[in-house]
Amino acid sequence: MTTAPRPYRIDCLQYANWSDKIFRQMREGGVDAVHVTIAYHETFRETVLNMEQWNRWFEQYPQLIFQGHTAADVRRARDSGRTAIFFGFQNPSPMEDDIGLVEILHTLGARFMQLSYNNQSLLATGCYEAEDPGITRMGRQVIKEMNRVGLVVDMSHSSERSTLDAIEISQRPIAITHANPAFWHPALRNKSDDVLRALSQSGGMLGFSVYPHHLKDKSACTLDSFCQMIARTAELMGPEHIGIGTDLCQDQPDSIVEWMRVGRWSKDIDYGEGSAAAAGFPEMPDWFKDNRDFGNIEAGLHAVGLSAGEVAAVMGENWMRFFERSFGPAQAGTTSGEAVAAE
Amino acid sequence: MTTAPRPYRIDCLQYANWSDKIFRQMREGGVDAVHVTIAYHETFRETVLNMEQWNRWFEQYPQLIFQGHTAADVRRARDSGRTAIFFGFQNPSPMEDDIGLVEILHTLGARFMQLSYNNQSLLATGCYEAEDPGITRMGRQVIKEMNRVGLVVDMSHSSERSTLDAIEISQRPIAITHANPAFWHPALRNKSDDVLRALSQSGGMLGFSVYPHHLKDKSACTLDSFCQMIARTAELMGPEHIGIGTDLCQDQPDSIVEWMRVGRWSKDIDYGEGSAAAAGFPEMPDWFKDNRDFGNIEAGLHAVGLSAGEVAAVMGENWMRFFERSFGPAQAGTTSGEAVAAE
Repeated sequence: MTTAPRPYRIDCLQYANWSDKIFRQMREGGVDAVHVTIAYHETFRETVLNMEQWNRWFEQYPQLIFQGHTAADVRRARDSGRTAIFFGFQNPSPMEDDIGLVEILHTLGARFMQLSYNNQSLLATGCYEAEDPGITRMGRQVIKEMNRVGLVVDMSHSSERSTLDAIEISQRPIAITHANPAFWHPALRNKSDDVLRALSQSGGMLGFSVYPHHLKDKSACTLDSFCQMIARTAELMGPEHIGIGTDLCQDQPDSIVEWMRVGRWSKDIDYGEGSAAAAGFPEMPDWFKDNRDFGNIEAGLHAVGLSAGEVAAVMGENWMRFFERSFGPAQAGTTSGEAVAAE
Repeated sequence: MTTAPRPYRIDCLQYANWSDKIFRQMREGGVDAVHVTIAYHETFRETVLNMEQWNRWFEQYPQLIFQGHTAADVRRARDSGRTAIFFGFQNPSPMEDDIGLVEILHTLGARFMQLSYNNQSLLATGCYEAEDPGITRMGRQVIKEMNRVGLVVDMSHSSERSTLDAIEISQRPIAITHANPAFWHPALRNKSDDVLRALSQSGGMLGFSVYPHHLKDKSACTLDSFCQMIARTAELMGPEHIGIGTDLCQDQPDSIVEWMRVGRWSKDIDYGEGSAAAAGFPEMPDWFKDNRDFGNIEAGLHAVGLSAGEVAAVMGENWMRFFERSFGPAQAGTTSGEAVAAE
């Protein structure tokens, strides 16, 4: 008789100022997989430079991390005591205006791509625009191509109608990797009940964010309040459609939050979720400072009455199942000889 | 009892004006794998555009071709009656001045890269330069990186000293994918006995070219003369270090041979192996016009007295063994979690 392996622990969004310290903290926190943002506003070539930097880290720290391509890599990470790193973009800027780059970027390891980041993009509307015309002509073509190759549509920073459109147009379940329900904290970045219901009914996933601007009471948010919110969302969406996407931006200087917000699209400062008085990164809540604190969330979920199975589902098992069905080429119409692993 | 599968048939260089007609001819000719040139002078981004075009063809003609990444894909091609297409560059221009692009390009499927094409490059000297200072400082670094990831050093268009240097510096066997021995036809592109001996002693491979400028008597070269040359090279190098690399440029307009020769490096016309009087593509010999003619070469090799085993070795088995040990990450010092298949 063998012991069942422990459940998976997956964080479906981080954007830290990466270092071996953080990679070691991932191991201390027992994190099997992390979806890392490698582009906010970068062009294709700049995104490739970021991939090159990651290749260096993979070469330097092979005992801690390696690049994840498939759900099987999460299993391999757990079995070998390492963390699998999956690439994603918070903006479609890496594909520029070229649909052929969708497959190229997927081959290079991209597994999530937001269709917009706060602003209007070539594909969809961002959550800070006044008007939301929905998914564009090019957006429909790109969603189809993302579905074909196995690049997940992520609508974390997109607006209401565009998100509902994407859920409907996409032939495969989509994700909102890092956001919270608006019923708990009505930030522009948080999501309406309508979006959450449509997301879960289509088989999609929501990752709960710990970024203070997405939290009720911001940096002062309690663990209990956060976990009560998760329990309530489980009732709304079903406990199999939710996971964690912390949006951890550890060790980043404030110049980075300005890059995230302003990129190269404006000469004026845009404070995004912050303000002129509080322009920098907000302080994290005391129960989640870095990758070693996932145990706090797990304990908090037990404390608010989730079952052991539900806690395991939220902490990683749900993302694992989503990864299994999302990262390979589409089953129907798959005729390519490409060896991109379907699980 | 099962019948042994037929030997592999591999062409280690073509640069045709690709079409479904040519892909069908590959099938008619029983060609299991082709190394195709996808860059002469292209930048990184332009090379990626060429990969995008190939992705379209893979999607359009999945019954005929698919992208090859490992030797196992050649087996899969033979078993499924298709041709595996392996990417290569005749110049290091796709990696620009950025060593990090070596791994990126390998991930995208590049399996061969020439260190120079006729001229001096950042890495090595081309065969048309008056002076040959050998492998450059950057060249040494790039060879090490190519060795690490499994991108084969190809010296087909490089000069004598640079080629001997590369053979010595490279920790893994290198290739001259498309050239002939200078003892048979003393073109600048053909290789000295010294180079051929050093190549075979290091475990490397020579692919015999059918491009008329590399042939004795050019377009009028007889099949018998070509096959006698192969038999003589087998004596010099050993029958396990030689294969086919036709340099077939089927259906290309003459504007392409000008691009190959001049790229963007000169405002003057350079005729390369041609001349002002014969500037275009030369006519192919009547025994090798396209992929359906590999049987002629095979028959010619039998006719000049090679054994059945030697003929099979030259027609593909030698390249297959070379692919098996060349396309994955280096065995020693391999610590990456990357799933690039070692065979």
